Amino acid sequence: MASIAANTTPYSGLPPINVQLFEAKARKGLSFADIGKAINRDEVWVAAAFYAQAKFSQEEIVKVGQVLEIDPVAISSVLGDHWWPDRGLVEMPPRDPVLYRLYEGIMVYGQPIKAVIHEKFGDGIMSMINCNVHVEKKPDPAGDRVVLTFDGKFLPYSQW
Amino acid sequence: MASIAANTTPYSGLPPINVQLFEAKARKGLSFADIGKAINRDEVWVAAAFYAQAKFSQEEIVKVGQVLEIDPVAISSVLGDHWWPDRGLVEMPPRDPVLYRLYEGIMVYGQPIKAVIHEKFGDGIMSMINCNVHVEKKPDPAGDRVVLTFDGKFLPYSQW
Amino acid sequence: MASIAANTTPYSGLPPINVQLFEAKARKGLSFADIGKAINRDEVWVAAAFYAQAKFSQEEIVKVGQVLEIDPVAISSVLGDHWWPDRGLVEMPPRDPVLYRLYEGIMVYGQPIKAVIHEKFGDGIMSMINCNVHVEKKPDPAGDRVVLTFDGKFLPYSQW
Amino acid sequence: MASIAANTTPYSGLPPINVQLFEAKARKGLSFADIGKAINRDEVWVAAAFYAQAKFSQEEIVKVGQVLEIDPVAISSVLGDHWWPDRGLVEMPPRDPVLYRLYEGIMVYGQPIKAVIHEKFGDGIMSMINCNVHVEKKPDPAGDRVVLTFDGKFLPYSQW
Amino acid sequence: MASIAANTTPYSGLPPINVQLFEAKARKGLSFADIGKAINRDEVWVAAAFYAQAKFSQEEIVKVGQVLEIDPVAISSVLGDHWWPDRGLVEMPPRDPVLYRLYEGIMVYGQPIKAVIHEKFGDGIMSMINCNVHVEKKPDPAGDRVVLTFDGKFLPYSQW
Amino acid sequence: MASIAANTTPYSGLPPINVQLFEAKARKGLSFADIGKAINRDEVWVAAAFYAQAKFSQEEIVKVGQVLEIDPVAISSVLGDHWWPDRGLVEMPPRDPVLYRLYEGIMVYGQPIKAVIHEKFGDGIMSMINCNVHVEKKPDPAGDRVVLTFDGKFLPYSQW
Amino acid sequence: MASIAANTTPYSGLPPINVQLFEAKARKGLSFADIGKAINRDEVWVAAAFYAQAKFSQEEIVKVGQVLEIDPVAISSVLGDHWWPDRGLVEMPPRDPVLYRLYEGIMVYGQPIKAVIHEKFGDGIMSMINCNVHVEKKPDPAGDRVVLTFDGKFLPYSQW
Amino acid sequence: MASIAANTTPYSGLPPINVQLFEAKARKGLSFADIGKAINRDEVWVAAAFYAQAKFSQEEIVKVGQVLEIDPVAISSVLGDHWWPDRGLVEMPPRDPVLYRLYEGIMVYGQPIKAVIHEKFGDGIMSMINCNVHVEKKPDPAGDRVVLTFDGKFLPYSQW
Amino acid sequence: MASIAANTTPYSGLPPINVQLFEAKARKGLSFADIGKAINRDEVWVAAAFYAQAKFSQEEIVKVGQVLEIDPVAISSVLGDHWWPDRGLVEMPPRDPVLYRLYEGIMVYGQPIKAVIHEKFGDGIMSMINCNVHVEKKPDPAGDRVVLTFDGKFLPYSQW
Amino acid sequence: MASIAANTTPYSGLPPINVQLFEAKARKGLSFADIGKAINRDEVWVAAAFYAQAKFSQEEIVKVGQVLEIDPVAISSVLGDHWWPDRGLVEMPPRDPVLYRLYEGIMVYGQPIKAVIHEKFGDGIMSMINCNVHVEKKPDPAGDRVVLTFDGKFLPYSQW
Repeated sequence: MASIAANTTPYSGLPPINVQLFEAKARKGLSFADIGKAINRDEVWVAAAFYAQAKFSQEEIVKVGQVLEIDPVAISSVLGDHWWPDRGLVEMPPRDPVLYRLYEGIMVYGQPIKAVIHEKFGDGIMSMINCNVHVEKKPDPAGDRVVLTFDGKFLPYSQW
Repeated sequence: MASIAANTTPYSGLPPINVQLFEAKARKGLSFADIGKAINRDEVWVAAAFYAQAKFSQEEIVKVGQVLEIDPVAISSVLGDHWWPDRGLVEMPPRDPVLYRLYEGIMVYGQPIKAVIHEKFGDGIMSMINCNVHVEKKPDPAGDRVVLTFDGKFLPYSQW
Repeated sequence: MASIAANTTPYSGLPPINVQLFEAKARKGLSFADIGKAINRDEVWVAAAFYAQAKFSQEEIVKVGQVLEIDPVAISSVLGDHWWPDRGLVEMPPRDPVLYRLYEGIMVYGQPIKAVIHEKFGDGIMSMINCNVHVEKKPDPAGDRVVLTFDGKFLPYSQW
Repeated sequence: MASIAANTTPYSGLPPINVQLFEAKARKGLSFADIGKAINRDEVWVAAAFYAQAKFSQEEIVKVGQVLEIDPVAISSVLGDHWWPDRGLVEMPPRDPVLYRLYEGIMVYGQPIKAVIHEKFGDGIMSMINCNVHVEKKPDPAGDRVVLTFDGKFLPYSQW
Repeated sequence: MASIAANTTPYSGLPPINVQLFEAKARKGLSFADIGKAINRDEVWVAAAFYAQAKFSQEEIVKVGQVLEIDPVAISSVLGDHWWPDRGLVEMPPRDPVLYRLYEGIMVYGQPIKAVIHEKFGDGIMSMINCNVHVEKKPDPAGDRVVLTFDGKFLPYSQW
Repeated sequence: MASIAANTTPYSGLPPINVQLFEAKARKGLSFADIGKAINRDEVWVAAAFYAQAKFSQEEIVKVGQVLEIDPVAISSVLGDHWWPDRGLVEMPPRDPVLYRLYEGIMVYGQPIKAVIHEKFGDGIMSMINCNVHVEKKPDPAGDRVVLTFDGKFLPYSQW
Repeated sequence: MASIAANTTPYSGLPPINVQLFEAKARKGLSFADIGKAINRDEVWVAAAFYAQAKFSQEEIVKVGQVLEIDPVAISSVLGDHWWPDRGLVEMPPRDPVLYRLYEGIMVYGQPIKAVIHEKFGDGIMSMINCNVHVEKKPDPAGDRVVLTFDGKFLPYSQW
Repeated sequence: MASIAANTTPYSGLPPINVQLFEAKARKGLSFADIGKAINRDEVWVAAAFYAQAKFSQEEIVKVGQVLEIDPVAISSVLGDHWWPDRGLVEMPPRDPVLYRLYEGIMVYGQPIKAVIHEKFGDGIMSMINCNVHVEKKPDPAGDRVVLTFDGKFLPYSQW
Repeated sequence: MASIAANTTPYSGLPPINVQLFEAKARKGLSFADIGKAINRDEVWVAAAFYAQAKFSQEEIVKVGQVLEIDPVAISSVLGDHWWPDRGLVEMPPRDPVLYRLYEGIMVYGQPIKAVIHEKFGDGIMSMINCNVHVEKKPDPAGDRVVLTFDGKFLPYSQW
Repeated sequence: MASIAANTTPYSGLPPINVQLFEAKARKGLSFADIGKAINRDEVWVAAAFYAQAKFSQEEIVKVGQVLEIDPVAISSVLGDHWWPDRGLVEMPPRDPVLYRLYEGIMVYGQPIKAVIHEKFGDGIMSMINCNVHVEKKPDPAGDRVVLTFDGKFLPYSQW
């Protein structure tokens, strides 16, 4: 229907092998953190790999297959050596409120963040390639808080 | 010129009183952190207020005026009680690389972040209204790192 | 056909389990209010859940299944614990006149609403997360009236 | 500057006579409700007229002029008989969070609202021309609430 | 192919039951006017209903089914009581020249039309809900003319 | 202000000579129909010329100058022989409700109109170049009606 | 894949009957000019009809069917009397370089072309309905040249 | 006014020196062809240079200055050696009907033109850099015709 | 799911024969450079042909078929004489970071590049039709470098 | 004028101090390479700094001021320590043909470039921050060639 942008499960639209990963995770009742422990990775990075936004090494594929009881060959035949991520999954501007609030954060606080980066580091950027992302839960009697951290390398602009 | 999106100083386009704040800050060689100390606020929040993305209290206006040697009446006649912020300063998608990297962070890591928030908190969002934003410099021999933190209250969806 | 944005039933485009909910409701001739009574929820909230814009609890899934004679397991295997809504169903700007009038209401009355909120509450927003929505029919000899109410918590902007 | 969408006072961009209305209101410390009492209109409607989204009658212009101590001739020479509103003030999608939440409300709850209107009224729309809009403050110990109401005539679709 | 916006029959993209209506009409060699006579409706309205932009009553479904030799139950199971139109079929801006000329008419003559409506009726609009649309052929030796008429109720803006 | 699309009088944004035409018309209290009588043109066409969407002949410029007491030389130095219209005044999609309803009319009734034109005329279009536009007021006890007519030449597609 | 706008054969996306026409043409090794000879039409017009941008007469369908050895009934059951073109096949702006250069031609030379048309013809347009289009090959030692001609009727603006 | 895309003379928006060229041309009553004769260039090319879409040589500047009685130094101080065109003057999609018809020509006939170019020339494009553009008036008793020609070098795709 | 732009293997979305080429290449563990050696072409050109952005000659098809053990007839039945590329594969703006950085390079360095081209060559462009593209790996102790080269013919603007 | 995107000198739209740099350069007849020699920088980098897309050091400002005979204090009061670039000057998609060809290069060759980078370097990107850009003129009897090189550091994706 024209007025409706169809949506369904949180991972529909992904390739079948990724859907299988999500379904096995749900069936086994595992969290991303649980899976992360098996391959020594942060939960956000694991979720990124499930969403095809990061690339498992061959060794990680084997371990993830074991944890989820999926044949690693099936995983690596799609997500193995000859595959590379096509990053940039979220349609912009996001319509989902969870995603939109992050987007709004850039519109409102982007210039202040840029100004403080320049004050503290000079002319350059925070890398989003060499960048770790964490989501923590901070208990608070007035309501628990989400602490979202981007920890990225500063890259100064080259001159030539 | 049609091919050029004109740009100039980092604060052109803001109302004159905000430009004055920026110019006085430059003239006095103060950082946002310096000004933040005078009013007991974080440097990112101060930068947000300079960019008209947050609202000084009357008391803060007086102190900022003192620090920058600007008549507080001039500030409060524009940014005082009858003024409220029109938030959302950054044109989207951002073209500046510093801002764009944040935008890219949402496109690439937004779904993983959303998934982990749901896993840890349930059905709801991280507030961008009740949210503190920090920029820290983390020294690193392989290149210093920018640590950007959003610390926002979790808001569960109401049912009725 | 290129000139046509295909549309069909009012719920096509939704996941199969949601389509089943709509079809069972039609078959049984129930209104959203009828279903709402069974789970003690407002009709608009029930409709939101049918459109996958709100999340039934496990208990609600059981009751809805009973009312509509659908196996609750079938519902919860899709919409259960591991599912979360992907909110934001309406394509914007809306083309359907019912939806467009709401959109027009924001374009015309949005600034006045914002101004009065600031006058009455200060610097902050009306939450759309902690917000109840109602649609009432008000009989009127000059033509019945639709009374649409958004009842949302005021959230003041944090300072830090 | 290219990255900045310039903004300033909450009414900049309006015609000079409207700016004068806002400035006189601020100078006199009046609320929209105060001005509404003088012309027997709701505060939201008054704010709409200040934003050039509604049209004062000649009689109302005289009274508003008296309350704000502005020469009514100056007002009516611009906003008088030969003027009509050019409605639709808000740029869409809105970037300001107060306005955006209303927009999000349509994306998330628009289809449920439409479905309930059809259930209760049949094939037609809620008029946004014959529609009254109210903003009320509802005290609540858990945090005060904004109650926003659209009260619009139902218009059935004609057949011919 | 990326460069091509695929198109096919004039009604592809519509729900199957609507396609059936079009095909039966073609098979029987009937015009919209012919079908309109059977249900006492104008040809444009009938075409609108075929395109799912208007809603047949139950009685009209029966008669249309008879004229086209389609089982009315098949029609009403989709387009019956629990169905309502999702209006707004044409993608904008239209690319087809017939549709584009109408669009151009608004861009060129929209302001003059608005100005004359205000002069003749005051502050309000021509309803597109209570509006009849007609297409007539006016023979002319210099080339026949299309006479397209919108006959809509004037709705004055409410004040409150 | 970023959230506001500034608007002012109904003819601001036009070249100075057109603004003069509008102001003189207002000062003299004339309708477009009054001016149309002086040059034997329909009121909609006159409004189009005032909005720089149609071109006065030299003779018409003289008469309009006389009626409005503006020096015809001033008019023809801008709108004379070396000037031609840059048509297409309305920003699309229109935000003003009067203009939007016309736009909605195309989205909802465009395909039916196209279908009936093809049925009655064959493969071709209604010209918007050789097209007359009229706005009439039709009194009606249930509320007066606006009758808007486009009377355009049918142009068959050439083959070669 | 999100980054890829899938493309395939030069006529994929068209209705099956058109694909058949293209495939038969390829199989028989005929050019558009060859087919044009059989129905006495220019090669560009034939290509337009193959792309569903022009309408064959019944007689032409028969001849094209003979030339391509396709049953004319199969063609006319889709593209016959009850079908009409949905014109406007190219997505804009075009991404293919052949198509883009034409688009660029309008951006660069559109105003000069308009200016010269006004100088030579007065206030009006070149019709794209009554317009013949030709592509010729002009041998040139410095590199052969494409000569693309639009030969369209001038339509003066009506006044009323 | 928000609903109006302001327009004025056919050359407003250009740099002052170009406006001077247009005004001098109007004052002297010269056509583009007249000026073209003085510098041995086609009228369309001259118009392109007037619109800052082509670059006069120093010698041409002198002759144009003589013909229009403008000091060549004034012209060459802006449009001389250190200036180069910023091509691409027309906003797309064009709203003016003269320009739009050309745009429509690409949407409708672009694929057929591409197909015939490939048939006649192979894999490559028609250059819009090495391309001459002409506008001719072809008298016709059924209405004069505009003959618009693009004569561009064929460029085959390189392989490497 | 609405929030997700589905992506999968790096070549999904391409026609089946191209997918076969990619899969055979992966199966055989060949690089684009390996395949390029067989047909005496650069690796980037080979990759372009795999992505349907360049056209193999019949001779090249035969050799590629041999190297990949695919029947050349299967390749040439789709990509042979009657096929031509529909170029322009990447959706813009690109969301993938690898592609986006190139895009950013134009936004930041496009004007400087244009200025230096004009300084060195005069009024004209670098052809993207007669242009060779290379990607080299330059070892560097501070981190290896990508050297991306566009080597295109300069085309001066024609005058006529 | 609505149809025209005004353009003027190649550096209009930049801040006054940048315009001064361009004008002094023109007055002195210097190339970007000439200025680059004075500060030991490549001509493309110098042009980038002139376009406010790179940041001069204080020392460079002094030397540039000497070469162009502009007071360095005037330069550094705007472009000095408290200023940082707002990068991203080109409006996208570019309309100027020189810039567009680069854009087209990404649409056509972006995926092949990405594929070869992955083959040669693994999962990561070519930095546009640590990237040098060069424009060389390569004489060629068949027409001189532009050789445009991006030499950027490869950044592998971090895992965490």
